[in-house]
Amino acid sequence: MPRYKLTIEYDGTPYFGFQAQENNLRTVQETIETAVKRFCGESLRVRVAGRTDTGVHATGQVIHLDLTRDWPADTVRDALNAYLRNDDEPIAVLTSEAVGADFDARYSAKARHYLYRIIDRRGALALDRDRAWHATRPLDVDLMNAAAERLIGTHDFTTFRCARCQAKSPIKTLDRLSVRRDGQLVEVRASARSFLHNQVRSMVGALRSAGEGRISADDVSRVLEARDRKQCPALAPPGGLYLIGVDY
Amino acid sequence: MPRYKLTIEYDGTPYFGFQAQENNLRTVQETIETAVKRFCGESLRVRVAGRTDTGVHATGQVIHLDLTRDWPADTVRDALNAYLRNDDEPIAVLTSEAVGADFDARYSAKARHYLYRIIDRRGALALDRDRAWHATRPLDVDLMNAAAERLIGTHDFTTFRCARCQAKSPIKTLDRLSVRRDGQLVEVRASARSFLHNQVRSMVGALRSAGEGRISADDVSRVLEARDRKQCPALAPPGGLYLIGVDY
Repeated sequence: MPRYKLTIEYDGTPYFGFQAQENNLRTVQETIETAVKRFCGESLRVRVAGRTDTGVHATGQVIHLDLTRDWPADTVRDALNAYLRNDDEPIAVLTSEAVGADFDARYSAKARHYLYRIIDRRGALALDRDRAWHATRPLDVDLMNAAAERLIGTHDFTTFRCARCQAKSPIKTLDRLSVRRDGQLVEVRASARSFLHNQVRSMVGALRSAGEGRISADDVSRVLEARDRKQCPALAPPGGLYLIGVDY
Repeated sequence: MPRYKLTIEYDGTPYFGFQAQENNLRTVQETIETAVKRFCGESLRVRVAGRTDTGVHATGQVIHLDLTRDWPADTVRDALNAYLRNDDEPIAVLTSEAVGADFDARYSAKARHYLYRIIDRRGALALDRDRAWHATRPLDVDLMNAAAERLIGTHDFTTFRCARCQAKSPIKTLDRLSVRRDGQLVEVRASARSFLHNQVRSMVGALRSAGEGRISADDVSRVLEARDRKQCPALAPPGGLYLIGVDY
């Protein structure tokens, strides 16, 4: 059975997350699987690198799927895009390639890269509504980076983990957490082999508090060491988060 | 009567353009005027720098309005943003300042600046659907700039003017038309004291054809000199266009 690796972009706003749900909610996964069924008649489950939550976006999500017939990879991309566009779904297949049966979108991933967008200005957001977090107080990027450094490395991230997180261990290795400013846009980039549920949004919540001067880098170390979810400063909203790439 | 100059951002997708219509269509102007009425009870008309068409966006639109009471300018901004957000309207007031009675958002404007976004890649657009023009063939930015140079300066822009354009004269001075690439994003920037109706989108249509190698810079000069709307290569869709600033 030929296996295809697809890179996917989507606007997460209208979807109840990536993962298919029991209750007929509109999800990215089921929308893609419906397009596959229309294209070639096959009912299948796609496998995904990162299960994004409701409202979270992707510019470099990766999935794989197995088809019975050996279609050219470009045909798979163009056909799925045609069905998705026809249904007015904000999901696009960026690339498609044939891969071996040993490739698994989830288990073969060596690193996942996220971007979180914050806009700090007094005026409300219009074009970036549901696409960035609005901060009305100015953020100090140096303070945010000082706080971010306390989270890089291998730690027990219990404080930065959602109660619903299903990971066996709360210990993760965070390879990158860095902040840079481009005008009114403050970009947080996070990279790791894998993340706990809500980990990026929880860390961004802490970084924003640090950027506003409400907590210090030492406070961030303290809440990390507390391993206590209740000490997490805040949870950043989903609309600012983008899965931007997966390394294999 | 105190006059206020407001800088406005909006996502043009859900609106039938800026200008209020006879037939109760949802427009940016009426949405703002409704927010003003809720804020201070006054029914008024706002004046605008650039009347954008259906689906066209703005990050730096300018309007002015006269209020009876002398509100602090920041109060006007924050109150309008609160009412707009409450109604889930993708319109935001970025800045507000008190100005003299001689200021007119439309007639005092010395230059208007537009950005047009094109994304050239095989994969469809998801996050930039309604926010950029999708080009599936790669665009040559050097060819686009060579064509753009033929349009800069003072010309009779009849070829690049919509049939519904109400301007008395088709002669305009184009100060800037330049193209640059940032990854898959091709940005066209156009500046002039004023533009004809559909002029930017008509010029961008020609530049895309030039970037695909389908027409030459000489062809662009020829269609300009023809002063014949039917010779305009194409009209770029509205979703890629942004009014990004107005100089006074």
